[in-house]
Amino acid sequence: MLEVVILGSGNVGNHLVQRFEKSTDVNVIQWYNRNLPNINSFPKSIIKTNNINNLLEADIYIIAVNDDKIREVSSKLKFNNRLICHTSGSKNLKELSSKNRRAVFYPLQTISKSSDINNIKTPFCIECENKDDTKILEKLCNSIDSKFYNINSKQREKLHLAAVFVNNFTNQMYSIAKEITDENNIDFDILKPLILETANKINNLDPKSVQTGPAIRGDFETIKKHINNLTDIKHKSVYKILSSLINKDYEKL
Amino acid sequence: MLEVVILGSGNVGNHLVQRFEKSTDVNVIQWYNRNLPNINSFPKSIIKTNNINNLLEADIYIIAVNDDKIREVSSKLKFNNRLICHTSGSKNLKELSSKNRRAVFYPLQTISKSSDINNIKTPFCIECENKDDTKILEKLCNSIDSKFYNINSKQREKLHLAAVFVNNFTNQMYSIAKEITDENNIDFDILKPLILETANKINNLDPKSVQTGPAIRGDFETIKKHINNLTDIKHKSVYKILSSLINKDYEKL
Repeated sequence: MLEVVILGSGNVGNHLVQRFEKSTDVNVIQWYNRNLPNINSFPKSIIKTNNINNLLEADIYIIAVNDDKIREVSSKLKFNNRLICHTSGSKNLKELSSKNRRAVFYPLQTISKSSDINNIKTPFCIECENKDDTKILEKLCNSIDSKFYNINSKQREKLHLAAVFVNNFTNQMYSIAKEITDENNIDFDILKPLILETANKINNLDPKSVQTGPAIRGDFETIKKHINNLTDIKHKSVYKILSSLINKDYEKL
Repeated sequence: MLEVVILGSGNVGNHLVQRFEKSTDVNVIQWYNRNLPNINSFPKSIIKTNNINNLLEADIYIIAVNDDKIREVSSKLKFNNRLICHTSGSKNLKELSSKNRRAVFYPLQTISKSSDINNIKTPFCIECENKDDTKILEKLCNSIDSKFYNINSKQREKLHLAAVFVNNFTNQMYSIAKEITDENNIDFDILKPLILETANKINNLDPKSVQTGPAIRGDFETIKKHINNLTDIKHKSVYKILSSLINKDYEKL
């Protein structure tokens, strides 16, 4: 049984507590947060504290706080040589205080408090200073049936950037589409099966190999019509630059 | 029982034949294609022809050919006053010859021959010149358990544009991400659960309300780092313009 202390009550902290609570191989023995009311409601079996000097002894301390608070929180810990990890995609392992055994335990997923933990798969990016600690974090992932990948800090920075494209910017594509449907009294729901299938399609196929649409076809007439139809000047720019990435012939026009 | 003739053997033609073959309320009585070998293999029960003068009498003729061939194919039909429809997202209903009852039956989905018709939902955009024909196309959708929406040609043009954003351009986001992971020896598979969840999330929520990431947070330090990390100058431009759409403060910097 792995004993874990969670620090922080944001989306990731909450998600991890819920995940671990469902596992018979992990025990969240304590949950720390500056503001007790944020964590007091759930789950009752876990000891809560807002005093960072009172942390219990555990196998792993997971610091799930805002990126800019990682350094401060890890420095305040009153013990040495224990396994501590942060959960950030963009911060180096060295952001953590070196008085403890440092690691990263980054869930590569878009997690909100409303996420249904029964239906969401979360792979973890693991990075440890000490080889033996890697095994502990792997065991932690196995205990919640999650895939894990060994990703160093330099790779994680790039991966986080890639995640911005597939999550933040893809969601922005959905927003632009919704603006277009709203403007034209079209039910946005009609696009949802297409959105899902677009994501499903690359489960087995390289995105380059499934690219479709006017740009890849070289259908410059439709492209021109589409650009004319867009009312937002920035949307026009997005359309143009993405089309020129899909088809290099486009920019020659 | 609705009797249907399909014209064309592209992705849409193939998909429709397979869908209708599974329904007990529709009968594909004939499949036309210029090149017989493209359609001869499947399914054996359907009569095939490459002679457009030999089409059987049917309730609906579905012209699933390339956009630029719709006019020509519909003009060549040797009968009048029957219900004919094209399946294009971007062409007006009037692209069809007026000697027949014109309609549009546009499947809003990314369809390839490898698509698993058992797991793919396809809503249809319906437009008819005659009210009574709307009922026939609605019946056709019901027979294959597909949702339908009444969308006129002007709306369909905008919807097709919105579909370019959620399909073609979203897929381009996936391609950029794959370039980044490939460049850094990271397994692209690690991003797939995030890609799926990003799509799933807007099933019940407005994309604007679930926007996350450095841009919406106003985390300009991370944005700067990300732009420096991108090696492709166009990817930098995409990053900048999408960030400025997500957060209007970004462009003021």
